[in-house]
Formats: sequence, structure tokens, C-alpha cells
Amino acid sequence: MSVSGFRFAAAAAGIKKSGALDLGLLVADDAYPTAAVFTRNLVRAAPVEVAERRVAAGLGRAILVNSGNANACTGRPGLEATQETTTAVATALGVDPDLVLPASTGVIGQVLPSEKIITALPRLLEALGPDERGFAEAILTTDRWAKVSRTEVGAAHVLGICKGAGMIHPDLGPAPPHATMLGFLVTDAKVDQPGLQKALERAVELTFNACSVDGDTSTNDTVILMASGRSGVALDETELLEALIDVCRPLAREMVRDGEGAEHAVDITVRGLKTEADARAVAETVATSPLVKTAFFGKDPNWGRLLAAAGRAGIPFDPQVAEISIGGFTVCRAGLPVGGQSEVQAAQVMKGSDYTVVLSLGDGPAEFTYVTSDLGHGYIDVNAGYRS
Amino acid sequence: MSVSGFRFAAAAAGIKKSGALDLGLLVADDAYPTAAVFTRNLVRAAPVEVAERRVAAGLGRAILVNSGNANACTGRPGLEATQETTTAVATALGVDPDLVLPASTGVIGQVLPSEKIITALPRLLEALGPDERGFAEAILTTDRWAKVSRTEVGAAHVLGICKGAGMIHPDLGPAPPHATMLGFLVTDAKVDQPGLQKALERAVELTFNACSVDGDTSTNDTVILMASGRSGVALDETELLEALIDVCRPLAREMVRDGEGAEHAVDITVRGLKTEADARAVAETVATSPLVKTAFFGKDPNWGRLLAAAGRAGIPFDPQVAEISIGGFTVCRAGLPVGGQSEVQAAQVMKGSDYTVVLSLGDGPAEFTYVTSDLGHGYIDVNAGYRS
Repeated sequence: MSVSGFRFAAAAAGIKKSGALDLGLLVADDAYPTAAVFTRNLVRAAPVEVAERRVAAGLGRAILVNSGNANACTGRPGLEATQETTTAVATALGVDPDLVLPASTGVIGQVLPSEKIITALPRLLEALGPDERGFAEAILTTDRWAKVSRTEVGAAHVLGICKGAGMIHPDLGPAPPHATMLGFLVTDAKVDQPGLQKALERAVELTFNACSVDGDTSTNDTVILMASGRSGVALDETELLEALIDVCRPLAREMVRDGEGAEHAVDITVRGLKTEADARAVAETVATSPLVKTAFFGKDPNWGRLLAAAGRAGIPFDPQVAEISIGGFTVCRAGLPVGGQSEVQAAQVMKGSDYTVVLSLGDGPAEFTYVTSDLGHGYIDVNAGYRS
Repeated sequence: MSVSGFRFAAAAAGIKKSGALDLGLLVADDAYPTAAVFTRNLVRAAPVEVAERRVAAGLGRAILVNSGNANACTGRPGLEATQETTTAVATALGVDPDLVLPASTGVIGQVLPSEKIITALPRLLEALGPDERGFAEAILTTDRWAKVSRTEVGAAHVLGICKGAGMIHPDLGPAPPHATMLGFLVTDAKVDQPGLQKALERAVELTFNACSVDGDTSTNDTVILMASGRSGVALDETELLEALIDVCRPLAREMVRDGEGAEHAVDITVRGLKTEADARAVAETVATSPLVKTAFFGKDPNWGRLLAAAGRAGIPFDPQVAEISIGGFTVCRAGLPVGGQSEVQAAQVMKGSDYTVVLSLGDGPAEFTYVTSDLGHGYIDVNAGYRS
């Protein structure tokens, strides 16, 4: 199912030593309303700087994305390489360079090899077509599989493609966010640019910004959403937001499932607090606790670690009303162990690849869910030798 | 070298399954000025609740501490067990129970076995003597070695004993902090209680609260300082603070060196920011980054991860002036790679057990140093199976 108005292509440009696909191009039929969010890390890669400036006008025509090189911490030569490669795309398409948005992911501190990209461009342009699969492949780094998600609202379509497995703790915002995650969303719905930006920010807040592999926010995180309007279907704010959440939530979960070395994807739901911000803060602290994450790896229903992590989040609650369940089995009630069979059942649930932990911390109305991975030997293996 | 006014004892009370020493008693000759700081975690063990209330009067006569059981998340039965055991000590010493301060460390969610402790008390009282070594042994959990430090200021002495290897990220404060670390400090200097409390809080801020193994703050963290005055030497504020830092800094470093699975203890010094609070925030974010810590494990001078972690701390600085050195070798200057030989030399330094990373992020006056461990397979092994 293609999304009218958008074409994709991929090539192996030799940026990755392995010779795998490492360059992707997304081209729209025209300059369409475009929304974007970028990493809030102070240290921002050249493509983030360039893409943010260009997308400020609210329009986009093409996205040029590479893996194998983040082009971060590369100063003026890095900036020039990003500008040179996107300008080459613009020239080939006969459009203003400001309509071509760059994104990069990979190793930090090496200048993007622009000549390899420019050499691969003719092949890339020739390969443009409705199938997004090669593109989804070309943007991967330590990912084990491509991540694509789609939904329909009446006759309108939304397609999402993302990558990310490590340095995953997106903190994407209107001005500046965390992890290298890259996400590209296209829709043929009719939406104006301010509506697009508003819906994207909220959807990201509830999905990509609510998932974590390692708590580290990247220098390159980028999510871009383009709307062609080609379906002729106008979506209102709520419809668009729901469609975006439908597409982004499974992508966020896929990133966690594919988290470096991860064997489990665990939803951490915090309930009963006063505000969503409070519930988010507690869920995030629990989701990033090394002791909690190693307990997930060990399949140990160690609710003491869950409660202790909640307690250091800086959000007030009464531990004596806390109730904690794992996969529906209550292991802690009124801040005390339930013990016995419930822990045995919870331990059984924890052998599965996907399950939910619920912390009920009061009778407030707010709830938030964060998805996180376990922390095991695989993560150490991937990250202790990444650059070698 | 004993500290006049204080005696120590240890026993194996059967709290630890291994049969190792697990109960320690510190008895002062009289009720002395006493200062204390406790975990700021909302979830606080029974001994923390009891000790904080009792020490509010500023006086202490004895400390009863056990390992093998944290007596956290144990409700009223836990509170009663703590009260019962400390009252038994008070009765035996013929003093007010409010002068006996409890501390516990070990597994969460199991009520302290008070009968085992009460049974062991006569042996403990009989063993009291000036040698702190058994006491220092009895408070250990996953620690591999006992941690003792001492200093002298003229004729006055300060002795510090601590434990801690996991759930280490102390956040000890006047009201409430993080990790199970326990620290016991005694001095024969003459200091009034307010002076003692003030100096302890500041010394802890610069030492125990500036070290991290896993970023997890415990439910039981406790540091207690008692001053007998027996040396007759009165220390002024600066002298006392310096003596406490002299004793606490090596203890904090020992906890990190003994961090669960740790092979390296790394000082993270952040310089050039506006305030100490800013420098602390950046140093703490770098020191707790899983990607930074796995790079330490991998002996990889991956300055991109260091800079990216600094950039997500929420503190403003210009990445384009950032300079990063590892063991004195500059690997990043003006936000860009130095490359070549310097990285080779830095990688060589990283084979050592102890080294320093310096991030210079501007020309501001403030600096802060945080000590952290690497994150490797050992940490996973220790924590994925802790309760089994």
C-alpha cells in the first residue's frame, strides 16, 4: 500500500564498510506541508542543524538520509558535506535546496563522505518508486530489522518508517530531544502545516519520547512528517493525532524490542498521580533504572527495585498505598510484599518477550506508559566494542 | 589507631545465609553530639525512619547495624523489629532507646529477624573493643572488601567506615537522598552538633553524593557522624570539613572501585561552567550514561559519547568550545576530534583501573568531580540474579 505523493529509493554508497544499503532518498511529488522535531541534545549533528533551519518554512520536497556516519562533532567540514549532498539532490530535482532535508545516523566524529553520496545519486534517483522497503533498510545501523508501520483513516493513509536500537531515549521537541532514532512519516491526508506540527509533537511525546533502550539521547534524533493531501481527505486534529499515535506507537515498541541486546520489551504504566508530567517522570525513572532493567533480564519479579526507583523520581506519592503488578499479577500491595504464588506467576510472565508492569501510586487521575528494554549481556557486547 | 570514646563489635547472627558476619555494634562512652543524613528516596526503610526521628535531638550513644536484610517495604512488622532490637541494645546499655540508632542493608521486602539479633546481642556486647575491623566487615553485602579511612588534624582523629557496591548513587540530604551505602564516622574532636551537621552535609555533597555505580538510589542510605570531644581539640568549620572530606573521598572511591562488577573507577571532572550545581549536573549525567560506562568497560576513548551525554544534561554550554581529555590526553578540542596518536594514548590509559576524564566546557569558574565505574558483564551477573 503506497501513500500517494511519495516515492522512495535506496542504494549502497559505500559509507558502511559492510557494503550494505546505507543511503535512502524520499521524494515528494511537490513541496508539501512538513513538520519536524529534532534532538534536544545541546550537541547536534550537522544534518540536524541544516534540517531544522530548512524546515522552518514548513515545506519539504525530499529527504536524504544515510546510515554509517552521524556527521556529528564534525564542525564546518561536516556542515559543508551536508550542504553539498543535499544541494546535489536539489539540483537533480530542479528544486530549491531548502526543500531537501538531511538526516544521518552512525559513528560520531567523522565527516560525512560527500563524494560517495554524490556518486550514488544517479542510481538513487533512477530507483525511485512507491515501495518503501529498501529505504527502510538503508537507514538501519545496529538495528536487526527494518521498522515500518501504517494505518488508514477512511481513504487517507499514514506510513511511518523508523530506525533505532541504541542511544535510544528520544527527547524530541519543537525547538531541540535524545537517541539516534530517525523517523519518517508520510500521509496523503490534507492537513495544514501548523496542524501537522502540533499533532506530530503530541504524538512523539506519547510514543518516541516514551521509549528507552539506554537512557542516552542522541545528537541526531530526527522525526519528519510530510502531508501530500493527495487522498483529498481532510483530517481534524483528533483524527490526525490518533492516526499518528497508531503508526508511531508500534514503531517505538519495535525500537525497544530491537534494542541493543534486548530480550524483552516492557511497558511501564504509572497510575494514580496528579498530572501526566508526574506520571511520566516516575515511569521514565523506573524505565531507565539499571537495577530494574537487570531484574527484567534476570526474569526476577523484584518489586522492591521497582518501588525504590519510583521513590527517587522526585515526585511525591505515598509508598504505603503503592500497588505493583507484573503481567496482571499483584506482587506488592500497600507497599508490602504479596509474596508466594503471585511472585511465581509474575516470574513466569517475565519469561515472555513482552509484558506490562503497572505501578498504582495513588488515586490521582493521571497515567503514563513508558516502554523499555531489559539490560543484559547483549547490550554490553554491542556497546563495549562499537567503534572497533 | 583507635578514636577515643568509641568501641566496636561484630557477630554472625545468622541473618546472612552464608554464616558470615552480619551484625555490627558501635557504642560511644557517653551520649555525644551526632549528625546524620539519610536517603532522599521517598521509599524509606524502617531503620531510616527510626534513626532519623531519634537523631533529631542531635545526640547518639550507639549504632546497631545489620547486613543481609534491608528491612525496607516491611510495614509495621518491620518498624516493630527495628524498635525491638534497638530497645534491647538500649536496655543492655542502660540508656534511653532514642540514643540507639539503627541501620540495615540487604534484601528488600523481608522483615528483619529480630530474634536472631537479640540472641546475638550478649556476644556483641562482650566483644566491644577499639578495633573497628570486624564492624567494617559485618556491614558488607555484595562488597568484595571492607572500607575504612582515617585522618588526623593535630591531636584529633577522624575514622570513617562504609559499605556499598550496588544501588550506589547516594543522594543523602538533611531531610531525605540514593543507593545502599552506609557510612559511619567518628571523631574525638570537639564540635557542637550544628557544626557537625553542617560539615557532614557539605562533605557528603562533595563525596558520597558525587559517586555512582548504577544511578540507583537506595531506600536505606545512611551516614552518621558522632563526636566524642575526647581529644580536647576543637576544630573550626573549615578544619572539620577538610578532615571529613579527607576521610569520605577515599571511601566514596572505594565504593566505586568495589562497584558490582566494576573494573575501573573513573573521575569525571567538569570544568568551565557558571555554577557548581551546573558542573555537578553535567558530571552526573556523564557519570551515569550507560553508553559512556560501556565505553569505559570496552577501553574505548569514545569522546563522542562523553560529549553527547554532556549535551543532554539540560545545562547550557557551547559544544564548539568543548575540550575533552582522558588521562591527560586531549581527544576532543573545540568540539572536534583530535584523532591519531592522542586516542591511542587515551586507550592505553583506559586499560588502568583508575583514571580521570576532564570535560572543559567554557570559561566559567565552576568545577565538579564525580566518580563512576564502568558497566560490564560483571554488573549484569551480580544484578540479574540477586535474590535467587
